[in-house]
Amino acid sequence: MSEQQHIHDIIPEPALRRLPWYLAYVSMLREQKVEFVSSTQISRELKVDASQIAKDLSFLNIKGKTRIGYEVASLEKELEDFLGFRRGHNALIVGVGSLGAALIQDTGLSRYGLNIVAGFDVNPNIVGRTLCGIPVFDVKELALRRKQFSADIGIVTVPVEKAQEVADNLVEAGVKALWNYTPYRIRVADNIVVQNTSIYAHLAVMYNRLNLHKDQ
Amino acid sequence: MSEQQHIHDIIPEPALRRLPWYLAYVSMLREQKVEFVSSTQISRELKVDASQIAKDLSFLNIKGKTRIGYEVASLEKELEDFLGFRRGHNALIVGVGSLGAALIQDTGLSRYGLNIVAGFDVNPNIVGRTLCGIPVFDVKELALRRKQFSADIGIVTVPVEKAQEVADNLVEAGVKALWNYTPYRIRVADNIVVQNTSIYAHLAVMYNRLNLHKDQ
Repeated sequence: MSEQQHIHDIIPEPALRRLPWYLAYVSMLREQKVEFVSSTQISRELKVDASQIAKDLSFLNIKGKTRIGYEVASLEKELEDFLGFRRGHNALIVGVGSLGAALIQDTGLSRYGLNIVAGFDVNPNIVGRTLCGIPVFDVKELALRRKQFSADIGIVTVPVEKAQEVADNLVEAGVKALWNYTPYRIRVADNIVVQNTSIYAHLAVMYNRLNLHKDQ
Repeated sequence: MSEQQHIHDIIPEPALRRLPWYLAYVSMLREQKVEFVSSTQISRELKVDASQIAKDLSFLNIKGKTRIGYEVASLEKELEDFLGFRRGHNALIVGVGSLGAALIQDTGLSRYGLNIVAGFDVNPNIVGRTLCGIPVFDVKELALRRKQFSADIGIVTVPVEKAQEVADNLVEAGVKALWNYTPYRIRVADNIVVQNTSIYAHLAVMYNRLNLHKDQ
């Protein structure tokens, strides 16, 4: 019975993926000094069913008022809290090549709670340097530095043929989640979280749809 | 009837999203000088059902041989062709802030057929500069430069409150596809392709799963 209840509390992934849309919209409203927003209004703006929005927001610790809706500032705060954007998460990044260096430079990530605290590479021209204040170490120091920085998350931005090896090393070093930017399907134990963000796969989908439109 | 056939040729998006996984694996095999690969082998490595793989690959212009499987080099080439990675696509990027600059610096994109040919911003400190050889123009020049570079794709890396306006400007300037990196749900006409890549939404999913594991 208690297990049943626990399952009920878990937000389904599609709902979780919609919450950042609501947050983006609500933050915009807050900047425009709007005080209240209804699910009908969010629905009209984001083209998501209003009842779906109400259901998604029911996972949060907030209640809308009849006719008035949700208080914008509270909704923004609750969304940020729920999404984990207000808590800092330390992350290591392995592979300080083109994409890795780009992510280190993206200050947007820290606004969403991700602090990249150290980079790792095998290239002697990169190891020992500092990028936007982030030190780059030799991959051999992974376990040592993981502990030092108490990082839970490992970002994988290495060439595809190194993806599995680096993932294994990160897990062995003690990270609990992997953010995999390679198109390789990393395999890990069940207790390790893997989030795949293959921007190149998104490119393929975009090219394909673009060609379909041209054929018409 | 001919329309029916046309519909049959359209690859479903989940299949399209799996193809880059196969490509990544096959490229790795090619580098390891492996000559043939079977769907059973791909299945074991990537944990995708073998019959699913055969079905996905049936959209390509390639046939596997009984018992031997697919020729690695041909499969790699066909996958790259099909995914559009071997054809150059010119893209404009609007918003040369932290993330925009990072994408311009990511040489990986050009390996997957995306050439960022120009950046646009409103910030006078950035406009007129060159980043990794890519010129940054004032957003007012969008229409003019779109034509000059014959770019089909517009990348949106502006703050969320500017996303819709920039999307509208890009479409008006003549791009056919938008690659939206903001968490904002851009609305466009049906003949315009929108690909959303919200890396911050992926962060939220990762944080959430990480917490669930900790609770256990």
